[in-house]
Amino acid sequence: MPCGEPALRDVHETGRPRGGFQRVMDDYQAGVMQMPRVATRDGNGLDAFFYPKGIVVAGASNNPSKAGHQVLKNLRRANFPGPVYAVNPKEEEILGYKCYPRLSDVPAGVQLMIVTIPAESVPELFKEASAREDIEAAVVLASGFAETGIPERVHLQEEMISYAKKAGIRVMGPNCVGVMNTDNKLDTTFAPTVKSIPGGLSVISQSGALGASLLMFAGDHPVPMGFSKFCHVGNQSDVTVLEVLEYYAQDESTKVVGMYLEGVSDGRAFMETARKLTGKKPLLVLKVGKSDQGSSAALSHTGSLAGSDKVYHGAFEQVGAIRVDTIEDLLNAAKALSMQPLPRGDRICVLTEAGGPGTIAVDEIATSGAASLARFSGRTIKELRDCLPAMAMIGKPDGYADMSAAATEEQHSRALSCVLADDGVDAVIVISVPPTFLSPVKVAEEILAVAKGSKKPVLVCLMSGEWVREARVLLESNGIPTFDMPDQAARAAVAMVKRGRYCREMVERGDDR
Amino acid sequence: MPCGEPALRDVHETGRPRGGFQRVMDDYQAGVMQMPRVATRDGNGLDAFFYPKGIVVAGASNNPSKAGHQVLKNLRRANFPGPVYAVNPKEEEILGYKCYPRLSDVPAGVQLMIVTIPAESVPELFKEASAREDIEAAVVLASGFAETGIPERVHLQEEMISYAKKAGIRVMGPNCVGVMNTDNKLDTTFAPTVKSIPGGLSVISQSGALGASLLMFAGDHPVPMGFSKFCHVGNQSDVTVLEVLEYYAQDESTKVVGMYLEGVSDGRAFMETARKLTGKKPLLVLKVGKSDQGSSAALSHTGSLAGSDKVYHGAFEQVGAIRVDTIEDLLNAAKALSMQPLPRGDRICVLTEAGGPGTIAVDEIATSGAASLARFSGRTIKELRDCLPAMAMIGKPDGYADMSAAATEEQHSRALSCVLADDGVDAVIVISVPPTFLSPVKVAEEILAVAKGSKKPVLVCLMSGEWVREARVLLESNGIPTFDMPDQAARAAVAMVKRGRYCREMVERGDDR
Repeated sequence: MPCGEPALRDVHETGRPRGGFQRVMDDYQAGVMQMPRVATRDGNGLDAFFYPKGIVVAGASNNPSKAGHQVLKNLRRANFPGPVYAVNPKEEEILGYKCYPRLSDVPAGVQLMIVTIPAESVPELFKEASAREDIEAAVVLASGFAETGIPERVHLQEEMISYAKKAGIRVMGPNCVGVMNTDNKLDTTFAPTVKSIPGGLSVISQSGALGASLLMFAGDHPVPMGFSKFCHVGNQSDVTVLEVLEYYAQDESTKVVGMYLEGVSDGRAFMETARKLTGKKPLLVLKVGKSDQGSSAALSHTGSLAGSDKVYHGAFEQVGAIRVDTIEDLLNAAKALSMQPLPRGDRICVLTEAGGPGTIAVDEIATSGAASLARFSGRTIKELRDCLPAMAMIGKPDGYADMSAAATEEQHSRALSCVLADDGVDAVIVISVPPTFLSPVKVAEEILAVAKGSKKPVLVCLMSGEWVREARVLLESNGIPTFDMPDQAARAAVAMVKRGRYCREMVERGDDR
Repeated sequence: MPCGEPALRDVHETGRPRGGFQRVMDDYQAGVMQMPRVATRDGNGLDAFFYPKGIVVAGASNNPSKAGHQVLKNLRRANFPGPVYAVNPKEEEILGYKCYPRLSDVPAGVQLMIVTIPAESVPELFKEASAREDIEAAVVLASGFAETGIPERVHLQEEMISYAKKAGIRVMGPNCVGVMNTDNKLDTTFAPTVKSIPGGLSVISQSGALGASLLMFAGDHPVPMGFSKFCHVGNQSDVTVLEVLEYYAQDESTKVVGMYLEGVSDGRAFMETARKLTGKKPLLVLKVGKSDQGSSAALSHTGSLAGSDKVYHGAFEQVGAIRVDTIEDLLNAAKALSMQPLPRGDRICVLTEAGGPGTIAVDEIATSGAASLARFSGRTIKELRDCLPAMAMIGKPDGYADMSAAATEEQHSRALSCVLADDGVDAVIVISVPPTFLSPVKVAEEILAVAKGSKKPVLVCLMSGEWVREARVLLESNGIPTFDMPDQAARAAVAMVKRGRYCREMVERGDDR
């Protein structure tokens, strides 16, 4: 699934005068349509992690129950194109990768080292690595360092870092699952099968398991959601969450960033970095530590001082980061933002074929505190009345139309076309529970005919399950995001409204370059 | 999936002194294990809807785009065992059901009439029906009555009801999708394929589409969730939501009730009826109208005065109805309540293999306002320390244990066994994101070995997707509910805590008989 918010740069010329928000929106739209995909590398220090020329796995193992085996399996499955070497004194070959007894035996040209040996031996390994000239980065999957809180183990981490610093090797981890990059067919993790589909979402997570799960759930969407990059920084002994955010900010393949956050040590630095990122692309944040106990769990997990949730909340608002409450909401918002143009205002129209689900969406928008229902013009109300079944309920409340269960497939599209033409409508949520006497695919085709190419975002909730699967695949393959539930569609639309507003404010402040 | 909360009656004798909450809990446990399934019919007026001897479909059609065709298709698919007759002057037979030109031609023995003819002809049909002696109930799927707000159409509904009253025919609808009953293989709706699997959940919905979707989503759980009865009352011209609640209260096949509510006209009567029901089984309510606009949408949908959300909220608390926010939460809570014993207290332990998802669950519990984290004894902490990997984080915060990604399959079960034995633990949520070097099925087997037969509820969140599908099926087939996400598991556990507390309070008040 191609994705993209090419943000605030000129992408093409339309021939008509463009400026301010109009320009931003045109660019966004053009970007969504053109989906630029070529990754550029600007030499930022993290390139050796995400685009290594060659890889060595120290601690490679023939035992499938070891991380040192699974990493090779993941590299093999992702089909990493560069050379991969394994260090193991007892084996000739593991999973088709040649083994070398010692790190020093490995041919030159390695840029990234993946470390899966026991913590105790890690400092020595870095000493060996420093004797080589080629290793620039290391992902340390091994755990048993500072996260234990045990003084000797904290010291072990310090020792490792001191060797690494001397050798000029950047370190990710320890106690991490490392990185994935579909752009470069790279997977340094030992996470179970993540579908390696290119997309615009990049993920930074303070939990490896949660981050990997998130990508697996992404693969379960009607059209599997792809991703660009994934990163779990573990103990942050060297590379920090903020550096990764900065890297994502300048990474052209990354169109939307999703973050699982437990806490940051330097709030001001976080805000600065986040602001750089949100100046270019949306940042979705799932932040835990809403309660004292949650903060305590986060502290024991990553040593993060979660701090006051209120303070974080305010900081997110200030820097234009969009806070989400669940993994599902993060993915749904990322999907909507990746596929659709931004709304030019805050007014969402709910167009539904079923009153119950429609009411749920209306409640969600009206209680969001960030978006409002659309304002229908008199003309829209008249046109809807003309094109919909007699029992349709129009404009009660304003911005809401219940087409009724008697609506045909064609009436879905006619009504959608009508509300999209209204200046009081900035975005549309279409909800339908196609009864057995309608064809869900035909409903989707009708919606698609109108929604495709719309300059206003259209989000679709087709309920439910298998009955509408094919219809949803059709919509998503054509860039129209779909959702299981009306409340999910509404929250995704609200996230788009927040992003749209932030972009307008940037333009007003002159911050869009 | 068998379900059951055989509530507050004696079901068996265990031979030891039992009283108050102990008895309630033993009964509950016994019920969950025995899963009584035989439906009893006590002659309540709605039996003719849910257990009709024979059915006639007035308005049967050979045209697949008509409700009058889909109803017959659904009756055929559900495999209704009694006689079904179709009224259609032009056809000999539809979908294998014999057609009769007029209602009066249909053989005697019909108890339920399903009406899919145009609204204008409905009063006349009821006049014909009153000439027969056998019809006791009618589901009127046809719309175009009072819900339109048009005076002539309101009158049409009144006329229909006046004929029905004279003839002693109870009416469900109009403008409804009617009933389903897996107990009797009955489906009067024109909703798309709902998997007709018997279970303990019964649904009453003020939205036909939402209710039907809910059942379709239920079918998408790892082990498809069954249901007992479904009802959508439409305009409530005769049979009301309250009557259905009362029917469900006394229905033995119904173990948990899920309700989608837009509003009720008589708050006091609702509270009385709901209290009768919650005295016997859990009631989960998804109530819309949280905002003025949502209330307005509900009003235009079903004419329900949603009223102050605060007042409803307070009423739910008073009568022990458990409010849920989403369709997913309703299903998840129903699943947990159907499968597991009730907690004897409010303290939930979170036992996790991954810090991020664990923290999310902790946050959800701590901010629920209804449950709290468990209190570990010193012994539990010591035992966990002994049986878990060195890098496990135990009791930070209290009641929380992060087994770490190094935990083996066996360590999952040892830790679970240990926390279940602690008196400070009333319920356990087990979370695991099995890394590639573990077998998800083995993790499930280990959890199952300990959780099965536990007197404390165990809820499991195995992340994610296909990687853990087989493991989740294994758990759910053995009565252990599983969830996609940690926050979902936590909300389901909190719902159980609420139900447990309400049952204890009933026992204290002496209201348990």
